[in-house]
Amino acid sequence: MTDNSTKRRGTQTIELKNPPKIISTFSVVGPKEGLGPLKQYFDKILNDDTCGKDSFEKAESDMMFTAIKEAIRGASLKETDINYLFSGDLLNQIISSSFAAREFSIPFFGLYGACSTMSESLSLAALMIDGGFAEYVVASTSSHFSSAERQFRFPLEYGAQRSQTAQWTVTGSGAMVLGKSGDFPEIRYVTTGLVKDYGFKDANNMGAAMAPAAVDTIYKHFKDTGRTPKDYDIIATGDLGAIGKEITEKLLLEYGYDISGNYIDCGDIIFNKEEQNTGAGGSGCGCSAVVSTGYIYKRLMKKEIKRVLLVSTGALMSTTSSLQGESIPGIAHAVSIEND
Amino acid sequence: MTDNSTKRRGTQTIELKNPPKIISTFSVVGPKEGLGPLKQYFDKILNDDTCGKDSFEKAESDMMFTAIKEAIRGASLKETDINYLFSGDLLNQIISSSFAAREFSIPFFGLYGACSTMSESLSLAALMIDGGFAEYVVASTSSHFSSAERQFRFPLEYGAQRSQTAQWTVTGSGAMVLGKSGDFPEIRYVTTGLVKDYGFKDANNMGAAMAPAAVDTIYKHFKDTGRTPKDYDIIATGDLGAIGKEITEKLLLEYGYDISGNYIDCGDIIFNKEEQNTGAGGSGCGCSAVVSTGYIYKRLMKKEIKRVLLVSTGALMSTTSSLQGESIPGIAHAVSIEND
Repeated sequence: MTDNSTKRRGTQTIELKNPPKIISTFSVVGPKEGLGPLKQYFDKILNDDTCGKDSFEKAESDMMFTAIKEAIRGASLKETDINYLFSGDLLNQIISSSFAAREFSIPFFGLYGACSTMSESLSLAALMIDGGFAEYVVASTSSHFSSAERQFRFPLEYGAQRSQTAQWTVTGSGAMVLGKSGDFPEIRYVTTGLVKDYGFKDANNMGAAMAPAAVDTIYKHFKDTGRTPKDYDIIATGDLGAIGKEITEKLLLEYGYDISGNYIDCGDIIFNKEEQNTGAGGSGCGCSAVVSTGYIYKRLMKKEIKRVLLVSTGALMSTTSSLQGESIPGIAHAVSIEND
Repeated sequence: MTDNSTKRRGTQTIELKNPPKIISTFSVVGPKEGLGPLKQYFDKILNDDTCGKDSFEKAESDMMFTAIKEAIRGASLKETDINYLFSGDLLNQIISSSFAAREFSIPFFGLYGACSTMSESLSLAALMIDGGFAEYVVASTSSHFSSAERQFRFPLEYGAQRSQTAQWTVTGSGAMVLGKSGDFPEIRYVTTGLVKDYGFKDANNMGAAMAPAAVDTIYKHFKDTGRTPKDYDIIATGDLGAIGKEITEKLLLEYGYDISGNYIDCGDIIFNKEEQNTGAGGSGCGCSAVVSTGYIYKRLMKKEIKRVLLVSTGALMSTTSSLQGESIPGIAHAVSIEND
């Protein structure tokens, strides 16, 4: 029997009464990510970012297949133990996810949240377990520099010059298996974001476009839960990069919340930005996916940290909307992951 | 207090213990759909399928905005009463949904299930209410002939000849508002689909590509729940069209289920196929959206029918995956909608 009477907190937050546990994760990254500062935290570093496939799109799907398969194996479960798979990615019609899901006999909910997909899939996976609908659920996402670059920007062969504010799409995939019990980090709060659009139109400065959404969701999370920045060891936005991170920090200060002491951005820390020539930092669904399944989860498991607020951030535009003169709406979803 | 102990049925089905009600729906269709056999059931028939916008993509988003806004109004609710919006569509990066969601202050989960999105969004919306996470949730989707045609097939200006097996993307959007109480049709079962791929590669015969997914989900629904075709007044697949419908019916007979007596396909009935020159029938997320929010919901409300199994079906390919020689995976999600 579950007490459902008091799950809602404020306007955008759920407090999970039977907090699901993240019982296993797996991260796969490309060679470049494997040279970055977080390399020790990733489960698999590819030598070849084509994964032996004849297209980057197939390679991305293969990475996600590996992340899901290995996360399930890491939980000592079989595919048939998993009740649902929640997954999405950046590619048109989320083919990385759909073609990965084709390889499993797991009921599949396809998502699109752009780079917010790790916390979107994690939110829904957690709610499915807390709601009593599932024993085990997988949440996953991916991105690939070469498939994203040619879909959203320019063919790689152009060798186009990149602006300093542009971000570098992470090649990587992360998957998490959620279950009901065990000594694992648990999900306590889920704060679901609103679409926010402050009129930014520069697709080479996505951090600025997504920052208002991150600010809004973090602010609502604090307001809804009564928590403050000090309640977290790490507050991690998805992939705002150096510029979006600075904006987010400043704007939240205006709302009365100083997050400077424990704030990281996954895109800001995944590369040595200058040495690795990655502009304002990493981006892509895979960015917060591999930082959360790698760096954050492993530190939580070692009890080096106690509470993390993961806030993956997405820019909800397409090349068509940008060509038609539209601005770039952003969204951010927050999930608190904590040791008891 | 909710009894969560017995929600799961078989491998893919949830029995909702506090069945959410569909308290309001709204359907918007284009001029061509407004000339078809179901015209009397639609809430709004556009005279101009551009909705006064300067692109078909903006028109599609505007249609969805209207469907959501009017469905909320029809439930005598305000935007702030709605806890979540689940929505997706066919366009790259689901811009119809994201740009519609931008106009509302409602926490937003973006989905991609291709043409299965109506039952995907409805499934998740229902689970959110049954799980105690929400009072009111909106599920919606859309498609537009002109935005889909140029994204997936050819520019309209080519005047390309269409094959007989091809389907005609429905211009339309449907939204449903789910709540907890009132004398409305309720959602009893949610059967979530697996991705099924039988190797079909013909993007001009999507009905055949999606039929195996429809068959699998309907079969699992019967197996999981113990129900039979006779338990439903209508079993409605999403948009298999005439060809996919015939395959589905035959294959289910091989599994021992004869659905011929009460089986319709939304794509098969939305147009006068020969007169309106729509090949094998209608398709697109909007197809099952407007048939379910229009024709099916209104007949349920008039108590002309008692139980419906809505099985929206999606083809999960992209133009990129097809150009790379991939086959077309399909998915189908089933939701039972019933009067007490």
